[in-house]
Amino acid sequence: MAREIERKFLVANDDWRSKVTETARLAQFYLFTRPDASVRVRIRDETSARLTIKTGSGADRGEFEYDIPLDDAETLRESRIGNLVEKTRHIVPLGAWRVEVDVFEGVLAGLVLAEIELTDITDEPPLPAFLGREVTGDPRFLNARLALYGLPVAD
Amino acid sequence: MAREIERKFLVANDDWRSKVTETARLAQFYLFTRPDASVRVRIRDETSARLTIKTGSGADRGEFEYDIPLDDAETLRESRIGNLVEKTRHIVPLGAWRVEVDVFEGVLAGLVLAEIELTDITDEPPLPAFLGREVTGDPRFLNARLALYGLPVAD
Repeated sequence: MAREIERKFLVANDDWRSKVTETARLAQFYLFTRPDASVRVRIRDETSARLTIKTGSGADRGEFEYDIPLDDAETLRESRIGNLVEKTRHIVPLGAWRVEVDVFEGVLAGLVLAEIELTDITDEPPLPAFLGREVTGDPRFLNARLALYGLPVAD
Repeated sequence: MAREIERKFLVANDDWRSKVTETARLAQFYLFTRPDASVRVRIRDETSARLTIKTGSGADRGEFEYDIPLDDAETLRESRIGNLVEKTRHIVPLGAWRVEVDVFEGVLAGLVLAEIELTDITDEPPLPAFLGREVTGDPRFLNARLALYGLPVAD
């Protein structure tokens, strides 16, 4: 098990685009969600697949990841709840950290979210100016919620 | 993915005991269940663990199995729904098939269930006399139900 500690932000502008070092196409869906746990399947670049169980809530969550055959992922997709979420993930290096900028497509088109994964809850990465409002812990921006209920309504 | 086709029976007497060729201690729990899918973690003989996703219902179900680290299983146990189900599984050969006789313990003590896994829905294994009433498709005898709601009430 890995402990997942991350901060999540809206994105204020496009300045991150010139700093991208790596890009991947992600298609993901949920098999189960409850308030304190979820099971997600993610297909990366249409070539590999991974099953992820998340437990807990907030900024500090347990994460269990298992590679699974691509064929299994395609079959499990029929048993999903909510939408298939498609997004392009852009990696932007940030000192000892990195920002993952997710540009959503399909029913979530228009949404861009940035996440910084921390190694410790006390990490204080420098926040680049392209980051907008922090939405860490805001349940409306949980990927599971987005898959089930679509784009959040504005405040 | 494997397709799981099985018939399930109550057990009429103890005649199976003299024919057992293999025994394992199973401890299992559910992370998620919904009517047409479940996620189960099973720990075998306190040495190995497996995550199983089942989809569909009735006698013909999809089954996706992944070995996971024992440590993951122990941690995931804290996020289970329902009871930890402990049972001893006895394997009884039956021609080209085999009977799995599960003797339950703890909150399910007293329950004994036998399952025959078929390779095809048209298989017709000879049914030994120690098998009692068939309960294939009876939702009260689903392992997930047993974990969540305990022993079924008599008809």
